[in-house]
Amino acid sequence: MFYDFKPMNDRPVSLQVKEYLKRLIIKGVLQPHQKLPSTRELSTLLNLSRNTIISAYEGLEDDGFAYTIHGKGSYVAETSSSAANTSWDLDWGARVNEYAQQASELDMMKRGIRAGKGTISFTSIAPDEKLFDLENVKRAFQDRMSVEGNVLLNYGYAKGYKPLIEYLLHYMDQKGVNLKEKDILITDGFTEGFDIVLSALSKKHGSIICENPTHNTAIKNLKLHGYEITGITMEEDGISLSELEQALSEKAFDCAYFVPSYHNPTGIVMSPEKRLKLMKLMERYQVPVIEDGFNEELRYSGSHVAPLIATAGQGNGVIYIGSFSKVLFPGLRVGWILADRELIDYLVSIKRARSIHTSTLDQSILYQYLYNGNFEKYLKKARSEYKRKYEWTKQCCEEFIPYERLSGDGGLHLFVTFEEGFDTRELLAACSRKGVIFTPGDNFYTKDGQGRNTMRIGFSRVSDDEINKGIRIIGETARQLRG
Amino acid sequence: MFYDFKPMNDRPVSLQVKEYLKRLIIKGVLQPHQKLPSTRELSTLLNLSRNTIISAYEGLEDDGFAYTIHGKGSYVAETSSSAANTSWDLDWGARVNEYAQQASELDMMKRGIRAGKGTISFTSIAPDEKLFDLENVKRAFQDRMSVEGNVLLNYGYAKGYKPLIEYLLHYMDQKGVNLKEKDILITDGFTEGFDIVLSALSKKHGSIICENPTHNTAIKNLKLHGYEITGITMEEDGISLSELEQALSEKAFDCAYFVPSYHNPTGIVMSPEKRLKLMKLMERYQVPVIEDGFNEELRYSGSHVAPLIATAGQGNGVIYIGSFSKVLFPGLRVGWILADRELIDYLVSIKRARSIHTSTLDQSILYQYLYNGNFEKYLKKARSEYKRKYEWTKQCCEEFIPYERLSGDGGLHLFVTFEEGFDTRELLAACSRKGVIFTPGDNFYTKDGQGRNTMRIGFSRVSDDEINKGIRIIGETARQLRG
Repeated sequence: MFYDFKPMNDRPVSLQVKEYLKRLIIKGVLQPHQKLPSTRELSTLLNLSRNTIISAYEGLEDDGFAYTIHGKGSYVAETSSSAANTSWDLDWGARVNEYAQQASELDMMKRGIRAGKGTISFTSIAPDEKLFDLENVKRAFQDRMSVEGNVLLNYGYAKGYKPLIEYLLHYMDQKGVNLKEKDILITDGFTEGFDIVLSALSKKHGSIICENPTHNTAIKNLKLHGYEITGITMEEDGISLSELEQALSEKAFDCAYFVPSYHNPTGIVMSPEKRLKLMKLMERYQVPVIEDGFNEELRYSGSHVAPLIATAGQGNGVIYIGSFSKVLFPGLRVGWILADRELIDYLVSIKRARSIHTSTLDQSILYQYLYNGNFEKYLKKARSEYKRKYEWTKQCCEEFIPYERLSGDGGLHLFVTFEEGFDTRELLAACSRKGVIFTPGDNFYTKDGQGRNTMRIGFSRVSDDEINKGIRIIGETARQLRG
Repeated sequence: MFYDFKPMNDRPVSLQVKEYLKRLIIKGVLQPHQKLPSTRELSTLLNLSRNTIISAYEGLEDDGFAYTIHGKGSYVAETSSSAANTSWDLDWGARVNEYAQQASELDMMKRGIRAGKGTISFTSIAPDEKLFDLENVKRAFQDRMSVEGNVLLNYGYAKGYKPLIEYLLHYMDQKGVNLKEKDILITDGFTEGFDIVLSALSKKHGSIICENPTHNTAIKNLKLHGYEITGITMEEDGISLSELEQALSEKAFDCAYFVPSYHNPTGIVMSPEKRLKLMKLMERYQVPVIEDGFNEELRYSGSHVAPLIATAGQGNGVIYIGSFSKVLFPGLRVGWILADRELIDYLVSIKRARSIHTSTLDQSILYQYLYNGNFEKYLKKARSEYKRKYEWTKQCCEEFIPYERLSGDGGLHLFVTFEEGFDTRELLAACSRKGVIFTPGDNFYTKDGQGRNTMRIGFSRVSDDEINKGIRIIGETARQLRG
């Protein structure tokens, strides 16, 4: 016995000895009330310092796996684990509900084509981690921890970390939002915010209206919440207002969901004129709007365009969900809901029931990073790099891909439409054999079978050379498929 | 104009100038296409360096609020924000659903008695932040950031941060759990884990069985998920098995929820014998069990007691939810679900739909902290301090409070039962006038009106002197109330 102990890694060796002995006890190799070797014996046996063994035995005792008799030594404690012998086999597939099954079925990550080594993948629109500003993040952490480390590590408020809320209110004020009677709830990124809002709204008609195509995660969550989705065609400058008005006049909707800036997946920015008309229309029909502030910060040129919630002025009909995930660091799960104060008060209770509160550490690092003024500097760098990549990708698409329409006013992706009848799933299958993958556009459509002739090309994490090479392959393959 | 600019805080002044100008543009004080003062002029006006003004103007342009005409200067851009004038007033109270209303009604944080300055509060069972081990948390952050900072700040996996999952599997293995066909999902603490599990399980009978009293957040979430709750009496060594068997034989349950160690609120540790019998009983009735691993680590004496999921051996009927929140740092929102692999696969998709994934930074700091062996050291220190406080609180209760029963085998709280007819809400009202508050026990009971004669005393964040003083006041007031 004891001869098979080997330190496995660089963790403290005394911990490894303790855990080794625990296994022997749990497996029943060491029996209750059996005497353990003296610390001197075991230190010789394992060729480790006596202090290491003493510390391991102390740990074993702390954990309730051993006891000491003074003057005699250490003994194995009587633990309950060895009593385990029930066996019980439930069929979990039959015990989960429809929601769980649907969540699994709609989970694109489970169905997506995986990028093998060397594959050029245009599927991601996550930020390029090479741009990350690690030094200033580290500084933000240190700054904040030295100010109030104890506070950050204990429970916080469901509503969020106060300095961050104040900062974001100011930030939204700077976008022209009328903050009167509005408030903010911090969430774990956009997705949690969206899920909480959908969980709170009463579903009188069971129907929701949105752009078509639109953000696939949003479609998934709308379906999971049991909504029937009416999708409205995208024009060059955003949603078709005439089609929208038609739909609103024909049917009652509980809610609308819009992505006005760098719309996912088309990359279109809704014009200021259209925003104003859209707001008047939604006001007329009294349909509340969930605004997805997605990528709003990734504007490469042109004037500032105010979000819908700013366009709505004093109105309280817009629920804005913001996030810096696509611009800053998605690993920090922080987003925010800006909406009517009364509504936020309900959402705070849902947030508390769901997950108590968002990580205070994430919130405080983000706050300090913003406060230190690093965001502006980082954004300048990121915008300039992404703009360059955006233009390069666009140029490659124009050169190689036989598209019918190419859209994208900025952001981290472009959207390609081929002629009717072309099938991008077929194209994907052929391209992936050549080591190139992208996201087929039908994922973003509200009805099955729509958008089979479209695709999204995310370029943020692909090198210039690979952008060129990958898009050339896509183009060539598309021409071959057409014959 | 411009005379009212004043730097407000220690953020970079150029940012403050930029934001000041933005406000003037949004408010319409500066009109579209109006020429801005030259950088030289403004630097004189504001008494700031010219570089500061240049940088502010650049920022303004980056954000789309200004444009430059070469050789002429900077001008205000035509932005859409000034177009805002719709006004739209929805009655959100009428637009939220029953779930949101119930979440708000059951939100204890909205109803609880607030502790004014100087109040001695026994309501919290959060860890004492004075014990926090900030230096090693900082080191864990630095260690991990230098290994893979870029990875930590970008998107991670819904299932969780791989090294942490591996660590926790090993950790649970060390508690005697049979890991065959089991897997782990990382969540934002216990609460999110519990909510995700409840969201996934099919509700055939709409009923759930648990200890009575039990964890109030769990009761809230069970109600929010629409379950009818059957509560089973707590005996000295845990749930009453005879009452449980009676209930199981009379009615079908979808699920059970148990807190076997340092049960909240009674502080009772279920005996190993009872755990084994409980598992056999649940197996016989094929009712799955959600095990709350609450405070399992805060054992002050006696042998290691294996969790129910270890007692169940190869069986897959137990869903274990763990968290270090009450022991380590609740500000880091990290918990885990350990359960049957097939079930975990469904839960991963729900987690992804809900919040993509738990903060990678939180997960990686926790991982590194555990890996470095700091947890064991911290636990030793925390256990010894909490044990001292626990004994002191118990002694004070025995001396001052005219209780009928006092329970609590460890953990961060004690539970007091007075004779039938005594009303702890009345006691609370009287004590709070004297500057002492606690949690009335009826909060923890599954049926309204039960447990009016009970109270929970959380001592983790109260000083020794205040424990003595506060409990003396509670005791005196209780005697007075009895007359």
